[in-house]
Amino acid sequence: MKRIRFRDPAGSTRVGEYDESGTIEAAGRTYDVDAVDVLPPCEPTKIVCIGRNYAAHAEELGNDVPDRPLLFLKPPNALAGHGDTVTLPAGKESIEHEAELGVVIGQQCRNVDAADAEDVIAGYTCVNDVSNRDDQRREQNWVRGKAFDNAAPIGPVLATPEEVPDDASVRSFVNGERRQDGSLDLMIFEIPELIAEITTYLTLEPGDVIATGTPEGVGPLTDGDAVAIEIEGVGRLEHSVVRRD
Amino acid sequence: MKRIRFRDPAGSTRVGEYDESGTIEAAGRTYDVDAVDVLPPCEPTKIVCIGRNYAAHAEELGNDVPDRPLLFLKPPNALAGHGDTVTLPAGKESIEHEAELGVVIGQQCRNVDAADAEDVIAGYTCVNDVSNRDDQRREQNWVRGKAFDNAAPIGPVLATPEEVPDDASVRSFVNGERRQDGSLDLMIFEIPELIAEITTYLTLEPGDVIATGTPEGVGPLTDGDAVAIEIEGVGRLEHSVVRRD
Repeated sequence: MKRIRFRDPAGSTRVGEYDESGTIEAAGRTYDVDAVDVLPPCEPTKIVCIGRNYAAHAEELGNDVPDRPLLFLKPPNALAGHGDTVTLPAGKESIEHEAELGVVIGQQCRNVDAADAEDVIAGYTCVNDVSNRDDQRREQNWVRGKAFDNAAPIGPVLATPEEVPDDASVRSFVNGERRQDGSLDLMIFEIPELIAEITTYLTLEPGDVIATGTPEGVGPLTDGDAVAIEIEGVGRLEHSVVRRD
Repeated sequence: MKRIRFRDPAGSTRVGEYDESGTIEAAGRTYDVDAVDVLPPCEPTKIVCIGRNYAAHAEELGNDVPDRPLLFLKPPNALAGHGDTVTLPAGKESIEHEAELGVVIGQQCRNVDAADAEDVIAGYTCVNDVSNRDDQRREQNWVRGKAFDNAAPIGPVLATPEEVPDDASVRSFVNGERRQDGSLDLMIFEIPELIAEITTYLTLEPGDVIATGTPEGVGPLTDGDAVAIEIEGVGRLEHSVVRRD
């Protein structure tokens, strides 16, 4: 089952069930997905992101694989949705896409055992961890580099974990050209370990998101680009990009 | 004028005017501050913190002064209030207090000029930037080190900027012993610059907080400690500490 949040033509925010044919059932009505404004599938108080969680991606940026999950944060101002136009920070040379599986939390939780982690998962979604390398390389904490407005396009749906194979493909496309093509089974730290580690320190709230890291193949984004993040069993997040330098 | 948020004895959340004598006026009623549950003075979507913003503190931790503001983030799970008992992360050797002025944002803003920064400030409060040095020293991004639950006690009031001298003292006390005694005029990057720099990248929302960095004199916290953060013209934030190792 795939849930989708949207604004209907009358302006009401609704949550419905999405069918692959492109229709949404919500509160007894049927909507065409192209006729509504798709919203992020959840309303996180924070997005906890994992860096260098695929060995080949760590290597392509010249980094070692970490000995425990590398954590960083994106606050709510970073959110963008399916179909949105993402405005990149001005005056930067290198801004890149990073296709990632997003784990959406279903209940408030702290000190979760890895063995119980699936109990706190509401579902999976697609995330683009948009990254401003100019600043990321110069910062202790990646705030200018990772937490800027629109740095976390997310969606379009929330899929139940059962629909997503353990080796689901994680792909990105820019203007129709495939850039990344990884697989969830290449993660260094798996989802239950990530939830256990994060909740050792931070309470997670319903709607919070864990962005689980990106496979190799990250590359540049520039003005006018059409981006898609596609995860097998979840769906395809699409957004455009503008730069105003 | 000092505003205070609290839960009244009937359980309603109220915002009132705080008088130094210890009384609160809210919606035509008078409350004794000791008879209510004081809440954080705002509800931030994020706390944007500044590292190494006082030269003597950068030096005491063996760091250089940065050439632009060092930014890091605390999410809403880090909040705690006046009178709360702060639970420290288990099994850590070094957890320290950091007394800081908190700037509370009054309106949604982006790309604010330093010259216009005062327009977006709702007021000032006290923040303890509680820091887990064990992890902070080992992390690229300070998430385990700075974003854990209860890592941001804040309050007790929101004071208008006019009440706070430019050289207001910033002090911390542990079990009545003075630990820090700095002055706001020793900040390297001043408040208007901080707002301009942050909003170049991130939209700030009403209730968001900028924690402006700590003066020298940081030191350890341990089980049973009584902590106070005192800023001249603002007030005195008090909380206790427990460790459950």
